[in-house]
Amino acid sequence: MPTNIIAPTVEADFTFAEETPFQLVNGESLSSVRLHYAIYGQLNGSRDNAILVCHALSGSARAGDWWPQLFGNGGVFDLNRDCVICVNVIGSCYGSTGPNDINPATGRKYGSQFPLVTIRDWVVAQSKLLDHLGIKRLRSVIGGSIGGMQAIQWAIDFPERVGSCVAIGSAPLSAMGLAFNHLQRQAIINDEKWCGGDYDTDDPPARGLALARGMAMTTYKSADLFTERYGRNLNRNGEDPLRSLTDRYDISGYLDYQGEVFNQRFDANSYLIITRAMDNFHPGFGYNSEIEALHRIQANVLLVGISSDWLFPAEDVRLLATKMSEAGVNVDYYELKSNHGHDSFLAEPEMLAPLLEEAVHNDAPSFRGSFCKSFGWLDTTSIRSLKDFH
Amino acid sequence: MPTNIIAPTVEADFTFAEETPFQLVNGESLSSVRLHYAIYGQLNGSRDNAILVCHALSGSARAGDWWPQLFGNGGVFDLNRDCVICVNVIGSCYGSTGPNDINPATGRKYGSQFPLVTIRDWVVAQSKLLDHLGIKRLRSVIGGSIGGMQAIQWAIDFPERVGSCVAIGSAPLSAMGLAFNHLQRQAIINDEKWCGGDYDTDDPPARGLALARGMAMTTYKSADLFTERYGRNLNRNGEDPLRSLTDRYDISGYLDYQGEVFNQRFDANSYLIITRAMDNFHPGFGYNSEIEALHRIQANVLLVGISSDWLFPAEDVRLLATKMSEAGVNVDYYELKSNHGHDSFLAEPEMLAPLLEEAVHNDAPSFRGSFCKSFGWLDTTSIRSLKDFH
Repeated sequence: MPTNIIAPTVEADFTFAEETPFQLVNGESLSSVRLHYAIYGQLNGSRDNAILVCHALSGSARAGDWWPQLFGNGGVFDLNRDCVICVNVIGSCYGSTGPNDINPATGRKYGSQFPLVTIRDWVVAQSKLLDHLGIKRLRSVIGGSIGGMQAIQWAIDFPERVGSCVAIGSAPLSAMGLAFNHLQRQAIINDEKWCGGDYDTDDPPARGLALARGMAMTTYKSADLFTERYGRNLNRNGEDPLRSLTDRYDISGYLDYQGEVFNQRFDANSYLIITRAMDNFHPGFGYNSEIEALHRIQANVLLVGISSDWLFPAEDVRLLATKMSEAGVNVDYYELKSNHGHDSFLAEPEMLAPLLEEAVHNDAPSFRGSFCKSFGWLDTTSIRSLKDFH
Repeated sequence: MPTNIIAPTVEADFTFAEETPFQLVNGESLSSVRLHYAIYGQLNGSRDNAILVCHALSGSARAGDWWPQLFGNGGVFDLNRDCVICVNVIGSCYGSTGPNDINPATGRKYGSQFPLVTIRDWVVAQSKLLDHLGIKRLRSVIGGSIGGMQAIQWAIDFPERVGSCVAIGSAPLSAMGLAFNHLQRQAIINDEKWCGGDYDTDDPPARGLALARGMAMTTYKSADLFTERYGRNLNRNGEDPLRSLTDRYDISGYLDYQGEVFNQRFDANSYLIITRAMDNFHPGFGYNSEIEALHRIQANVLLVGISSDWLFPAEDVRLLATKMSEAGVNVDYYELKSNHGHDSFLAEPEMLAPLLEEAVHNDAPSFRGSFCKSFGWLDTTSIRSLKDFH
């Protein structure tokens, strides 16, 4: 696996909706939408080697920064063959239009006035960038978590433009997942410095965002991993939880630190907007029924569940695969046995690399009904396929 | 099961350490400690029919209010036979000395100056009340969650005074459990109204405490129960999460409501103090080793794990039972299959009643080594005993 920095061939902005506002699913609109994107490798002459990588909650367009293990000769993303495109989502703080931008309608920062965007809005916006780049059809669209939601939404909304669709640790959030997101947002909203969303970015609701991140970290990892790494150890800088409330156990020091570093790179309003987009995702969203939506899919789909994921439990991902299959989608499901929790897709993607490599390039016209087609993954000690559950 | 109000025979205060301060494990001390307690039924002539019931985080001395299902003729607590005693823990806000009391040393409210008490301190204080009541030996000590921690601590610290010990959903907190408590405390500490612990009780850190309670509720219940009850339903008063950040899903409305009602009955500093006591509990605490501590136990012990408990996972309770067994304790372990999560001990104690009834009254001199003695519970569809894991 490469350890070098994976540099984009192009990193740029694409602006649209300068004349006609971009209509959002919830009825609001955005004027002059900027999409920040990165391209790795080159489009070939027929422009049919594009792979869209979709980032998760706090990711950026620079997929090479957060998924470097998947890049390389003979890897999932081989830049001699593939052209990898990644687009920062609307509402984020990594270059695309977001709450800290100036609202053309008021001349002031959006702040609390930034509209609630959805996964569908993101995907439509991305399609406009592809039009601009002259890409009619994606070889593949792939992502983990919210990135996987986008991949699934792409396959539903633009069935003829997607060859294969790969989503890892993605499913509609369960009630427990909705609860976690709600409580994390509440941590931000409770911070006096949030100021109803119109805060001073030089003095942001840092404590609230840090708490939200700490809470999120517990849902990204697993109890087993925490036991293995932290157990009941005291905080490594010599604190004693018997002495005072501010003295901590090691796990608490870790969570506080994660909250601190997160503040250096992320924005509170972006956190609110993106977690709500995550809440609102479900396959039937905007269609008459889930089955109608799923039936639209033409791509070959791979869904991957993670055994220790309790934000998106593997059984929820498996259920989605079953529903897709029932809707006639050429879908396969694999389960990664790992104690890294939801974060596995970022922490150990190399475990999945051979599986992903085959799935990403499995963009031949789909054979509806060939459910449980094997992708040839053999390591059954760590990965189970859907048929193992029948 | 009775639906009437279970009224205590006596509800009173016992005060000690008026002359010599009560020394706490962490080196600090408390002067003039008040224990608020309730007695149900009557002590018999030989004073050997006392059962100590220990409450959990937000419980009170009025065990009849929060465990009514276990009281009744022929029940776990038959007041024609048993004398049930329950004592509010030091640091709580239900009548025993706590952070809102006046510190005799300063003449001002303790607030931020309230010392960090431990489960061991609670148990020593309770022993002083028993001395005062003339009770040499408890027929049984029983509790769930932090109540079970107290029961175990009783069996370790006062081996000759405990006939049987019953703990449900109790074990040392894992790293994940420590994380949850830390984040909940942080929600309170982040609230500007907390004021470093010296807040105005007429204007307390209500938003922080509500958030802490909401977070805690997710750890008391299970994902399955939330899915069953709330799913992805919109909040029942007609909110639309696509419209605004303040519009919610049903689960979020439930959690917010739980936070709101909790504020009407609980104190933020008590929450901090008691959750830290919970953090610091482990059987070896204050002894040279865990095995030394466990080896002291003379009581017959029953530990109950709950299949869907992810605050105190059943496997952690089972591990504690195994360690007790290895230390020569006459211990049995049963596991309740339930989707109510940690809260099962409060939500459906009737499921456990026959098991508890036998265990509470199993106070004959113990037979060390008779591990896995059956308590005659037959419903193996919902309860598994330790031998089922071998």
